[in-house]
Amino acid sequence: MDRLKVYILGATGLVGQRYVQLLAKHPWFEIVGLAASEKSAGKTLAQAGWALEEPPPPDLAELKIEKLEVDRIPKVDFVFSALPSEAAAKVEPELAARGFTVVSNASNMRMDPDVPLVVPEINPEDLSLVRQQRAGRGWRGAVVKKPNCTTTILNLPLKPVLDEWGIERIHVVTMQALSGAGFAGVPSVAITDNLIPYIRGEEDKVVAETRKILKKDFEIYATTTRVPVLDGHTEVAYVDTARDFDAGAVADALARFRGLPQELKLPTAPERPIEVRSHIDRPQPRLDRWAGRGMAVVVGRIRRLGPRKLAFVVLGHNTVRGAAGNSILTAELMAKTPA
Amino acid sequence: MDRLKVYILGATGLVGQRYVQLLAKHPWFEIVGLAASEKSAGKTLAQAGWALEEPPPPDLAELKIEKLEVDRIPKVDFVFSALPSEAAAKVEPELAARGFTVVSNASNMRMDPDVPLVVPEINPEDLSLVRQQRAGRGWRGAVVKKPNCTTTILNLPLKPVLDEWGIERIHVVTMQALSGAGFAGVPSVAITDNLIPYIRGEEDKVVAETRKILKKDFEIYATTTRVPVLDGHTEVAYVDTARDFDAGAVADALARFRGLPQELKLPTAPERPIEVRSHIDRPQPRLDRWAGRGMAVVVGRIRRLGPRKLAFVVLGHNTVRGAAGNSILTAELMAKTPA
Amino acid sequence: MDRLKVYILGATGLVGQRYVQLLAKHPWFEIVGLAASEKSAGKTLAQAGWALEEPPPPDLAELKIEKLEVDRIPKVDFVFSALPSEAAAKVEPELAARGFTVVSNASNMRMDPDVPLVVPEINPEDLSLVRQQRAGRGWRGAVVKKPNCTTTILNLPLKPVLDEWGIERIHVVTMQALSGAGFAGVPSVAITDNLIPYIRGEEDKVVAETRKILKKDFEIYATTTRVPVLDGHTEVAYVDTARDFDAGAVADALARFRGLPQELKLPTAPERPIEVRSHIDRPQPRLDRWAGRGMAVVVGRIRRLGPRKLAFVVLGHNTVRGAAGNSILTAELMAKTPA
Amino acid sequence: MDRLKVYILGATGLVGQRYVQLLAKHPWFEIVGLAASEKSAGKTLAQAGWALEEPPPPDLAELKIEKLEVDRIPKVDFVFSALPSEAAAKVEPELAARGFTVVSNASNMRMDPDVPLVVPEINPEDLSLVRQQRAGRGWRGAVVKKPNCTTTILNLPLKPVLDEWGIERIHVVTMQALSGAGFAGVPSVAITDNLIPYIRGEEDKVVAETRKILKKDFEIYATTTRVPVLDGHTEVAYVDTARDFDAGAVADALARFRGLPQELKLPTAPERPIEVRSHIDRPQPRLDRWAGRGMAVVVGRIRRLGPRKLAFVVLGHNTVRGAAGNSILTAELMAKTPA
Repeated sequence: MDRLKVYILGATGLVGQRYVQLLAKHPWFEIVGLAASEKSAGKTLAQAGWALEEPPPPDLAELKIEKLEVDRIPKVDFVFSALPSEAAAKVEPELAARGFTVVSNASNMRMDPDVPLVVPEINPEDLSLVRQQRAGRGWRGAVVKKPNCTTTILNLPLKPVLDEWGIERIHVVTMQALSGAGFAGVPSVAITDNLIPYIRGEEDKVVAETRKILKKDFEIYATTTRVPVLDGHTEVAYVDTARDFDAGAVADALARFRGLPQELKLPTAPERPIEVRSHIDRPQPRLDRWAGRGMAVVVGRIRRLGPRKLAFVVLGHNTVRGAAGNSILTAELMAKTPA
Repeated sequence: MDRLKVYILGATGLVGQRYVQLLAKHPWFEIVGLAASEKSAGKTLAQAGWALEEPPPPDLAELKIEKLEVDRIPKVDFVFSALPSEAAAKVEPELAARGFTVVSNASNMRMDPDVPLVVPEINPEDLSLVRQQRAGRGWRGAVVKKPNCTTTILNLPLKPVLDEWGIERIHVVTMQALSGAGFAGVPSVAITDNLIPYIRGEEDKVVAETRKILKKDFEIYATTTRVPVLDGHTEVAYVDTARDFDAGAVADALARFRGLPQELKLPTAPERPIEVRSHIDRPQPRLDRWAGRGMAVVVGRIRRLGPRKLAFVVLGHNTVRGAAGNSILTAELMAKTPA
Repeated sequence: MDRLKVYILGATGLVGQRYVQLLAKHPWFEIVGLAASEKSAGKTLAQAGWALEEPPPPDLAELKIEKLEVDRIPKVDFVFSALPSEAAAKVEPELAARGFTVVSNASNMRMDPDVPLVVPEINPEDLSLVRQQRAGRGWRGAVVKKPNCTTTILNLPLKPVLDEWGIERIHVVTMQALSGAGFAGVPSVAITDNLIPYIRGEEDKVVAETRKILKKDFEIYATTTRVPVLDGHTEVAYVDTARDFDAGAVADALARFRGLPQELKLPTAPERPIEVRSHIDRPQPRLDRWAGRGMAVVVGRIRRLGPRKLAFVVLGHNTVRGAAGNSILTAELMAKTPA
Repeated sequence: MDRLKVYILGATGLVGQRYVQLLAKHPWFEIVGLAASEKSAGKTLAQAGWALEEPPPPDLAELKIEKLEVDRIPKVDFVFSALPSEAAAKVEPELAARGFTVVSNASNMRMDPDVPLVVPEINPEDLSLVRQQRAGRGWRGAVVKKPNCTTTILNLPLKPVLDEWGIERIHVVTMQALSGAGFAGVPSVAITDNLIPYIRGEEDKVVAETRKILKKDFEIYATTTRVPVLDGHTEVAYVDTARDFDAGAVADALARFRGLPQELKLPTAPERPIEVRSHIDRPQPRLDRWAGRGMAVVVGRIRRLGPRKLAFVVLGHNTVRGAAGNSILTAELMAKTPA
């Protein structure tokens, strides 16, 4: 088939670069343009400061970045937005009104009732909110959101636990990677031989978005911290389940978990969305973040600490499954199952 | 007064070196000898590999380390033991039988009912167990233990909360420093751009020792992790209290907390055992670990997340308050208030 | 005597904070005001973001930072400037014209022939250039510069080598600390598990300033790199001397080196400006950067690699000896020996 | 063709694991056995502690590691040795005597005149020393060595410079990765917020081996340091050439450099053994170490500092091009061009 055309907003940031990297050889999607702020306009990706391990893909390395102007975006099948939320709040609704389908990483609009907030393995059905969104807002296009990175990574293992044993209460503490704050987000002087026990806005997002995605009004308590790790968010969760469980059965349920993307064999879908590690000192960010090409989360230390008291550690690549990868998977799902 | 004589076992490890550093200018105690394994015998501290920021104190820099042999330890007022627990299990009882008072960091015997496990600000009264220990074991000396470092740091803020509001349940996640594993404990290859979500034996110690120190059979759940930070354990705690509270009142209670060491003005006692930081991104290990010369713990992010649901972050210097400093403070208390 | 009044420009940066820290208990100098950019005006140091290990000194913690306006600076004995060079180029000459004595860290004007560029142990005589500066520029005050941090640290050991054996050629490679780039200078994403083999403008400064300070037109080649170390620049130097030498004699000459600040017993002068370490794996930044309270440089690995071919490694604290400390020492020298 | 059989000695170390990783999908070679010390015997690679980013290849993950015993090694085409040099000094000659062809990373025998010390792009002709080795030692097999990792990485760019402009003198300073010391070689406590300006034995190896490989008795001066970088040695070189040069011409010569492995299209040969980066702040270890799948070295900052005074920075993956990869490439060359 002809490849679907996609356009990337905010292409020069760490998430924007992941989009480029993941889409470069995509079998369905073809990047037809990149936009960023005025500062990068007219430059190539390398000139704008490429920061990932592998150089930009050769066929995209020479593409000139455009200044973001709504008028100049060509007709495409999907616009992927890695804009900061303030910019997104202006641009994305306008694009949707003009008929573009925007799959966005930005946090604005996530909690609006008519906006799908999607982890494709968990709540693909929420994509149907697009109809309500269009009707209510008079848009020809749509805005679809991926959740906060920490939330996405946490929710994947919560889903099968919820389905089989029920969940009443969650305490979570996160140890988040530097890349989550963007390229210049955390100065090296601030984090060398150090950690920072606070990330602005993050805890509220984890609480609210988890309730929306899993459609349950849990008790959920979150403390989010920044640690000197490049990529990969690690999260320690204590889950009070509704019914008692066996730790081995939980491990099995997580390892067996599959969703619609696996059923449809979507190109970016990992074979196993959740990989379970049995070695007691895993998951570790450096060793496990690339599981399933960055699209699987890795769970370890699954323990029954008492009746209905489950503990585990989950890790995921924050700019792949937690950001660009999850959005691309969402777009694949939309392409395969039009609303 | 004449200074009391002290002897250090395991003087070449990171904790042993902290003992030397903290005791070098101690107003009451005088180091009369250092012992370590055969490998270091006959060397000076510098030759054995000094690893702290400041060089060994000049008057101790030339002292020759002795091979640890029970027979050759001179008559001293206190033996400070920084031995590994296996070696400690052999040597410490023998020393106590011979009349030595051993204040020890090693984990063996900590849970024995007749062994004081002491944070001097919290449970100084447990030093009286020494009488029972001597009677029951027929010892002329005694073995007194400091708790696991993570436990000590956690228990300091728990104590005033317990006293004023009661505690029913604790969930804790720790982010522990590299020095806690000893000089060669964590290879750099293992922890660069990484963290390790498991520390052998640590979680069980936190649970059991907290119950012994605070004398209450809490529900307590612990997950302990290692992060790339040199010194300073950070711990995120969720505490279900028995009675509801105001977050400001908790902050006040922690900041006002004092114990017997403060009352007695012991030399190593920090003026304030708990320092409360109001800035939202504190405590941080690099910025806060030296509070109260490493003897205060620093608490921040005190929040009421719901009725009777308290959260906070506590940080302490793991080899000072968590190890050598707490033992020295205990010995000071014993010197001032003989059993 | 009455303490001399000093004022700090650029007080909120890393070097500005070092000034505050080092001057807080200074026996001769008293901070009477702090200025910074509009962003910090009206805040206290803590509110503006204190980033050093120890909290701001209590008596200065509540001082309000002023917006930098030349008109509003009170009459003081010294103005210490930690301004960026662009701002410095505007403000410093104006202050000097108005009669202020400015001791500055900024790189502008350093190579002007009438501007003293001073390491007090090396070229205190260059302070007399102030007379020429005043005469030529019609200023009542003066601008005195400290050299680039890397240059200062390198030049201290070069000086006694030059004096005893002569120098014909220098090859130097530096491994510089993160704090040298300022608080937000190096993003953590850029330097984690990495190093950067380039620092803008640094190599030219090392070459030109070394020639000015040592008053000799050496062949000198520099490559400057950034490494993930918080504080402390490490420099590997190969020096072709004019006359052959014995490595032990070089070590002795460095260890014996003293300058005018030592003779005058200036308050900030380290007892020994150069400390020589004999252990083969020293100096190391974390272990040695605080030698002489950060004012000594530490030299190790002194080797004779062939006839007239000397190699050594030198380390110094880049924001103390390399910046604020060197300027304070310079001001002390000026106070003691008025031009 | 049938794949050639290979056997790995020292399979559990970091270099041993790289061998496994690089050979897992090799088109010519098939791993038929792994040996290590008694401690790992009977375990799988995962059980023995896999430390690389990607898990061990599935088909090798279940292979049991054997205790190293010369008698039990099956008939194979190549034995790859990642043994420590002491063990290698015992085992390798015995294997060669028994007819095995050993390609070894260990430093013993490297300087023996009848032992090839080979970087396949530079001195493939030295493989013919094997005939002399067999004749002189009465061996049916042979021992072939790869150079020290730092030497290999340095010598690749030196070779084309030597060929076109001649070399008279080299000053080099290295910043070497943690993995070069093996998994437990550098404790995290020793290197966090730090660097170590000394690596035992390394400088002598760089000097002696460079002279042997390039067959010229240069003046060469080396200082080798350890920095907190996981993989990738960075080296700053100053080269005094025999004839003057243009910096652009040097860049061209490096970028154009090819050797016999490229001509023969050996499977592990990178297309370009030397990649030249024009961006001023490159090469950087995290961004450039995987160039040419870890088999290319990356050179940047090529400068003419004066007449016949060349400077550059070279980076290479120390356990791929610097170790396992170079040995595999050597074996490929031997397989293709039998002595």
